Amino acid sequence: MHDVDFRGFASDNHSGVHPEILAAIVAANGGHQPAYGRDVYTDRLRDVFRTHFGPEARVYPVFNGTGANVVALQAACDRWASVICADTAHIHVDECGAPEKVAGIKLLPVPGEHGKLTVENIAREAYGFEDEHRAQPQVVSISQSTELGTVYTPEEIRAIADFAHARNMVVHMDGARLANAAACLGTSLRALTTDAGVDVLSFGGTKNGMLLGEAVVVLNPVLGRGVDYLRKSAMQLASKMRFVSAQFVALLEGDLWLRNAAHANAMAALLHERVRELPGLRVNHPVQANAVFVSLPEQALARLHRRFLFYDWNESINEARWMTSFDTKEEDVERLAEATRKALTR
Amino acid sequence: MHDVDFRGFASDNHSGVHPEILAAIVAANGGHQPAYGRDVYTDRLRDVFRTHFGPEARVYPVFNGTGANVVALQAACDRWASVICADTAHIHVDECGAPEKVAGIKLLPVPGEHGKLTVENIAREAYGFEDEHRAQPQVVSISQSTELGTVYTPEEIRAIADFAHARNMVVHMDGARLANAAACLGTSLRALTTDAGVDVLSFGGTKNGMLLGEAVVVLNPVLGRGVDYLRKSAMQLASKMRFVSAQFVALLEGDLWLRNAAHANAMAALLHERVRELPGLRVNHPVQANAVFVSLPEQALARLHRRFLFYDWNESINEARWMTSFDTKEEDVERLAEATRKALTR
Amino acid sequence: MHDVDFRGFASDNHSGVHPEILAAIVAANGGHQPAYGRDVYTDRLRDVFRTHFGPEARVYPVFNGTGANVVALQAACDRWASVICADTAHIHVDECGAPEKVAGIKLLPVPGEHGKLTVENIAREAYGFEDEHRAQPQVVSISQSTELGTVYTPEEIRAIADFAHARNMVVHMDGARLANAAACLGTSLRALTTDAGVDVLSFGGTKNGMLLGEAVVVLNPVLGRGVDYLRKSAMQLASKMRFVSAQFVALLEGDLWLRNAAHANAMAALLHERVRELPGLRVNHPVQANAVFVSLPEQALARLHRRFLFYDWNESINEARWMTSFDTKEEDVERLAEATRKALTR
Amino acid sequence: MHDVDFRGFASDNHSGVHPEILAAIVAANGGHQPAYGRDVYTDRLRDVFRTHFGPEARVYPVFNGTGANVVALQAACDRWASVICADTAHIHVDECGAPEKVAGIKLLPVPGEHGKLTVENIAREAYGFEDEHRAQPQVVSISQSTELGTVYTPEEIRAIADFAHARNMVVHMDGARLANAAACLGTSLRALTTDAGVDVLSFGGTKNGMLLGEAVVVLNPVLGRGVDYLRKSAMQLASKMRFVSAQFVALLEGDLWLRNAAHANAMAALLHERVRELPGLRVNHPVQANAVFVSLPEQALARLHRRFLFYDWNESINEARWMTSFDTKEEDVERLAEATRKALTR
Repeated sequence: MHDVDFRGFASDNHSGVHPEILAAIVAANGGHQPAYGRDVYTDRLRDVFRTHFGPEARVYPVFNGTGANVVALQAACDRWASVICADTAHIHVDECGAPEKVAGIKLLPVPGEHGKLTVENIAREAYGFEDEHRAQPQVVSISQSTELGTVYTPEEIRAIADFAHARNMVVHMDGARLANAAACLGTSLRALTTDAGVDVLSFGGTKNGMLLGEAVVVLNPVLGRGVDYLRKSAMQLASKMRFVSAQFVALLEGDLWLRNAAHANAMAALLHERVRELPGLRVNHPVQANAVFVSLPEQALARLHRRFLFYDWNESINEARWMTSFDTKEEDVERLAEATRKALTR
Repeated sequence: MHDVDFRGFASDNHSGVHPEILAAIVAANGGHQPAYGRDVYTDRLRDVFRTHFGPEARVYPVFNGTGANVVALQAACDRWASVICADTAHIHVDECGAPEKVAGIKLLPVPGEHGKLTVENIAREAYGFEDEHRAQPQVVSISQSTELGTVYTPEEIRAIADFAHARNMVVHMDGARLANAAACLGTSLRALTTDAGVDVLSFGGTKNGMLLGEAVVVLNPVLGRGVDYLRKSAMQLASKMRFVSAQFVALLEGDLWLRNAAHANAMAALLHERVRELPGLRVNHPVQANAVFVSLPEQALARLHRRFLFYDWNESINEARWMTSFDTKEEDVERLAEATRKALTR
Repeated sequence: MHDVDFRGFASDNHSGVHPEILAAIVAANGGHQPAYGRDVYTDRLRDVFRTHFGPEARVYPVFNGTGANVVALQAACDRWASVICADTAHIHVDECGAPEKVAGIKLLPVPGEHGKLTVENIAREAYGFEDEHRAQPQVVSISQSTELGTVYTPEEIRAIADFAHARNMVVHMDGARLANAAACLGTSLRALTTDAGVDVLSFGGTKNGMLLGEAVVVLNPVLGRGVDYLRKSAMQLASKMRFVSAQFVALLEGDLWLRNAAHANAMAALLHERVRELPGLRVNHPVQANAVFVSLPEQALARLHRRFLFYDWNESINEARWMTSFDTKEEDVERLAEATRKALTR
Repeated sequence: MHDVDFRGFASDNHSGVHPEILAAIVAANGGHQPAYGRDVYTDRLRDVFRTHFGPEARVYPVFNGTGANVVALQAACDRWASVICADTAHIHVDECGAPEKVAGIKLLPVPGEHGKLTVENIAREAYGFEDEHRAQPQVVSISQSTELGTVYTPEEIRAIADFAHARNMVVHMDGARLANAAACLGTSLRALTTDAGVDVLSFGGTKNGMLLGEAVVVLNPVLGRGVDYLRKSAMQLASKMRFVSAQFVALLEGDLWLRNAAHANAMAALLHERVRELPGLRVNHPVQANAVFVSLPEQALARLHRRFLFYDWNESINEARWMTSFDTKEEDVERLAEATRKALTR
């Protein structure tokens, strides 16, 4: 019913399901399994996440990234808390106010270069502790990789975590694309999270080849009271959870998570390589994960839109976001690069 | 990794995915499709739902039943509303307070015989209109089939709708098992909803053979402003929506919805037939959809629990809930019936 | 601008301010005092409340009763909590859904004879602990005196508290009219709260002669983290708090609280005495605090409405609520009693 | 019990009650008056507000400024809305997250010079209309006078309103100190609100000589459905409302509002005049209403803190906020000015 050979550059969630994950879904079918996470696949999942994130890690599969973030943030803070985040953060710009509306959490957005927070920027809002007039800053939320395709090094995360912890704040990581960051840096998932001081994580599956599924991972053993209830009341508790968990097991038990992410990154790197020196085109952010942000003359942009699917990110600067995925092919990239070259030279 | 031949009576969400639906997921895979409902499967879905529910029906796929209910209720009422429901309603007893916590909605539970509301019971809370001290009753929410396995006739629904509409209230139906009700009554889905005066519907897929997926269906053309935003802020917007929609298309385009539901109902009816006259056993509710509620002597209950998976519904009356599913086999039923007979006569 | 000699029986909040309290407001005026509770009157208030409620009591003045309840309940429970209350409770019937909307709290109303909860009734909803599908019952909320003018004895409160504490629940008391209960029973305020096992209290001032002001009182030293923030975010933090606190000091430092409440009670008792044996009139609840609930023939009710201000409480049984106040005069009562007698005999 | 001759520069809410307003409270006492705004004083209030704000103005007295803002914002927007405001706005920095927590509203703070929004700054967040991922920008909220003591001219407000209305947004004004702005500009209250395109207003009384009381004023006749319910569920409905309304009547019926505000402004102007040319002191914002923001050497600041009560506004730049009030005396100002001179020259 649809063209299975069409691939664009709009988002890694335009892709479908990786065959190994689809096979895992099929294998998990048949017979009855207890609902709501009491199945054997979710049991296995708990082990798999401990292997990646350390023996204290507790994992709670959920439906989507917004759900993961809203559950994770509630697990990390009190009713009267605020959360410091980059002004480009998904929780601030792309979740229709869910953190505020569902969890009553106030966000304190601060500017960040290339989508990344720094201690200096966090410090702009990390004040007013014990002042009852101020929603208490209790969480710093960072995205890894960021909305702008950049990544934090383990040292950068550690510096943020140290700053936060020194002020009794905790660190949340929106890791919808954590795999891409780890692939970029050549680190384990743990090196970027548990070992770098992250307290609670939203871990992404959907954008890395799953049909659907994200996970809240509580890394700090002190946190996380009541996450079961928070997940349920946030409408993120899957009844047939085996099918979410089986996907994660397929993704994380071997190295599929890394293969998928590394491939998507490599496709972005290739695209970057092909276009970076084209006259009239400006690359706006370092290309580290699986996105390339470029500014182009308006006419060139318009021409490319006729043949390729991608988003205009910031219309005021004629900025396109080109996103690659686990299933992007080299020929797709070459075709876009060539078309860009032509559009710019016409 | 699990026993694909094990089937119990705990819930219709212990089942897996119907093969035709799994095939639809597989067929929807490959290539890129726009995210968030702009794919061809969701387009098709809109037609399919209009076929079933009438030309004005607007459908919004979501992840789960609690999500569907919370989105649907918000679509149906103001910020200062209350919702009258049965004290056995899923929204009241099984959603961890999501309607209150996520949507700020007050519930007004009233007793209902066999899980069903009547105009008389609704009237107990349908007062205080224009009194600013009272969260305004704006919605009556009924479950079809009910939590207790009973069904409303079209006439019963119409009577409730007329009562509600006369007071400027609207009717929400929690139709997580609407298919079972329609199969029981031999009606179309439309006869129990659009044609009976229902204004907004939560329509269930998961319990009728889908991997995952429910739908908010706005039937009353006057309602439903902003449902897109309500769905997103309720964290119920799937990015790879094609996989939810493709399942619904497979379920509803032909008669799979009816086959699955009719089979589950038939299995419950068979079980009921086999046990109803066993001495020492009492059937607590009419068996109309796919559940059988029985009270048994404590020892008999304990014996059955050793071999079969099912829930104790009300411990104070030794009540078991036996639930059948699209994949329940006659032999499963006969085995439970026989074991019950033995447990009672020992 | 208004008739200062008019007094009705509609509510104790139709009264104005007791002269001693008005004098305290006047005395608190002039000069500058720190805002938000850092003034000398609020300091004094803290001592005064400790005198009444014990050395661990922490008091937080707020604006009104709904505000006190919503702050107190949040102080007593987690984000995923439910609160068991009588189906006549103010939090359930008269607060426009504020507990649900502002605090996301689910209420579990149970029937109660004469507005009072019993352990048996509470037990109907005190189940499902550790079940993630159920908003966790963490609080029992009782009203003292009740909405129906009845009171709990210290022993009755203790029994409820023991039941609650045995299940890790806490007890909230809506004490908007606690003074009336203490006056009725001849006990201290402490005997009905701290000493009876109450954990957190909403204490009323407005209905006992204050211009405006209620207080959240945290009695259980384990509770109450973050009440400052909860009060502020619930929009209940008065800037010129000295004027709220000075009223409370005037009310509670001497015996004004008791004089006012005892007088109001006495007026209700007198009214009850005068009408209880009138043929055609039925007294619906024990008259213990400052309200008399009676059923009258419709025509008699209509006649009385022409001359007196009072509320019809339950129209289906022609029920009137006659409420007395600190400023009700004997002659007011006699006049109503006499008119009732005439209305009934015409 | 307190020093009635002490006056500082901490805030206009450290003052007490103006004698004319206290007299109005006393006069409103005695007898019974219907609760919740059905009294004669609130009736009068409605006329008084119509006189000031035009025949369409509907007024809802509330307790405090945060309450007024949260009710007003809800009256102005949908459940899925966001509100653009200055990053110095009271709703963003001083309300402990109440707009988010109570109303589920997302705030979009933008920088503003001297606390004022401009069309250019508003435009930075006024995008994404009809994008379901974005909480919909439906309101622009401005403060008049601002948190930094500056004022918007009618033309500036009109420009913002035109920009907003052209995008189907509405304008909310936080007018906690609207009287000071009108006094500064020599305009009517209406010229700055109704006539300038403001749709809904939070109008302040407490900081201009009242004991307690603010008002939500709905100016745009299209808005404001359900404000009664929003006020009640926001716990802002006073039972003995006559005492809030009587104060407002006293403030607004004659010119007391203007006398109080003009005096406070004059005191700030005098202070500004006295200190502006002192070497080592920098005035950080135009002095237009009743606040003076200055940066001083750290030692000078410390010396002044020993004798005067005021807030350090921004410690990183040694900034003091000196606030004047209706009861500030010239001698208070001269004393502070002289002390400042000395502290700077030591």
